[in-house]
Amino acid sequence: MALGDTPITVVGNLTDDPELKFTQSGAALARFTVASTPRQYDRESGQYCDGTAMFMRCSAWRGLAENVAASLAKGHRVVVSGRLRQHNWQTPEGENRSMLALEVDEIGPSLRFATAQPVKATGEAKKALADDAWNSETEYSDKPPF
Amino acid sequence: MALGDTPITVVGNLTDDPELKFTQSGAALARFTVASTPRQYDRESGQYCDGTAMFMRCSAWRGLAENVAASLAKGHRVVVSGRLRQHNWQTPEGENRSMLALEVDEIGPSLRFATAQPVKATGEAKKALADDAWNSETEYSDKPPF
Amino acid sequence: MALGDTPITVVGNLTDDPELKFTQSGAALARFTVASTPRQYDRESGQYCDGTAMFMRCSAWRGLAENVAASLAKGHRVVVSGRLRQHNWQTPEGENRSMLALEVDEIGPSLRFATAQPVKATGEAKKALADDAWNSETEYSDKPPF
Amino acid sequence: MALGDTPITVVGNLTDDPELKFTQSGAALARFTVASTPRQYDRESGQYCDGTAMFMRCSAWRGLAENVAASLAKGHRVVVSGRLRQHNWQTPEGENRSMLALEVDEIGPSLRFATAQPVKATGEAKKALADDAWNSETEYSDKPPF
Repeated sequence: MALGDTPITVVGNLTDDPELKFTQSGAALARFTVASTPRQYDRESGQYCDGTAMFMRCSAWRGLAENVAASLAKGHRVVVSGRLRQHNWQTPEGENRSMLALEVDEIGPSLRFATAQPVKATGEAKKALADDAWNSETEYSDKPPF
Repeated sequence: MALGDTPITVVGNLTDDPELKFTQSGAALARFTVASTPRQYDRESGQYCDGTAMFMRCSAWRGLAENVAASLAKGHRVVVSGRLRQHNWQTPEGENRSMLALEVDEIGPSLRFATAQPVKATGEAKKALADDAWNSETEYSDKPPF
Repeated sequence: MALGDTPITVVGNLTDDPELKFTQSGAALARFTVASTPRQYDRESGQYCDGTAMFMRCSAWRGLAENVAASLAKGHRVVVSGRLRQHNWQTPEGENRSMLALEVDEIGPSLRFATAQPVKATGEAKKALADDAWNSETEYSDKPPF
Repeated sequence: MALGDTPITVVGNLTDDPELKFTQSGAALARFTVASTPRQYDRESGQYCDGTAMFMRCSAWRGLAENVAASLAKGHRVVVSGRLRQHNWQTPEGENRSMLALEVDEIGPSLRFATAQPVKATGEAKKALADDAWNSETEYSDKPPF
């Protein structure tokens, strides 16, 4: 983690299957969106009701990306942990835009409503070194991200 | 905190003086933006350099809002803790827009490069009850926020 | 989440298989310990080395507890999210003791070095309601916990 | 932040004035304990009541330590952000003991019930460099800490 990074953990459901790409240098990159819906307690009715959903764009790299693509699909509930990052870009019309997105360090399928038995990754994913994974951000920042 | 809320802590500097408003019901609302800049270690040079800044819009309510307005100014470094929320609205042209913002639960001036002696709040701020402060979100969600 | 709770996310490996119990009222309770080892960068050698491991005792309730017991085993790497709580008790000799432990809200097997495909829980676990799960702490606090 | 560190933010009140020491190498070290009390909602009464307090031992280094000592006192409410670390030691009787404590990266007096105007630190504190502050842990781990 870089100094001054903003750590964050989000719990929610994948809005779609993860999208797996490879950079020119051959690094795997998985992108997906997690929808997280807070539940608010209404004192009058004594009931919980859904608040406004938050949609968080996420990026995972290398072995983690491959394992995400091999494990998760639309609708799955996940626990995602990483760092919040701002991405800035220009529209074709020259307007400045920005968004916040999550650079994933760790993710797993939530066991709240499901079981999920981990199976040690093999092949490509095996080559993924933890230390490398933390330095992925330089390839990525300041491009139109999603 | 509502169930399923996304807790977050951001450290950074105020981009401007906080803006203090009052809702029709008389509740104080302070809005401000915190710029948080990660520092990345460059193995080649052995040096840290600035990464892309993240700009986080923040809202604080009631007594907390008044204390923020009475304490903080442009450039001050702060520690802000709260919940990440998505706000959705439509542009006059009918385009859907959204942004993430921080609903502040606690904030303080950072002591990393400054001293700051707390003084017990009096008057209006005194009436602020902790329990009420946590239920502020209903007044706020799903309006064009900033 | 109760007001003023301390949210926390821990990443690490299970030191043992989860231990599953049932309270007198029939609620499932899974207990396990997660060992989390920071990696420190040594500027001189340009290498990362292991720091001191942190051992975090965790408790999960109801359907979540049953899914944990059905999914996870000693050595598995997990992402655990919940609230940090202090537990106080007396030794038989009358000494006061305390420890911090994690009341689990969400947990999943980490996809960093493994794949894990979630399977919707059935049977007992299905009855677990998210809202109930958040009120489990009263059964638990202030007893000799582990 | 080291890889695999466990970030945490705690809100609570100082149980005592911070204790300021200097290491043999001349680095300032401030130690203090924050008591954080969750508030639980009781559906029957419709009221919040205090849960079991959590006591978190905290360490801050260098300029930050000096600013803490110059700003904060017993009873003050603070927002503390940093990394959770385990400390292991032996009692004189040869028993192994451990505790979790917070290595402080950022702290500020909470503005929830107080105002606090930051004043730029001068003198010794000025020499504190952010980058150095993050490498303090090696001086500290695996000693009887508190």
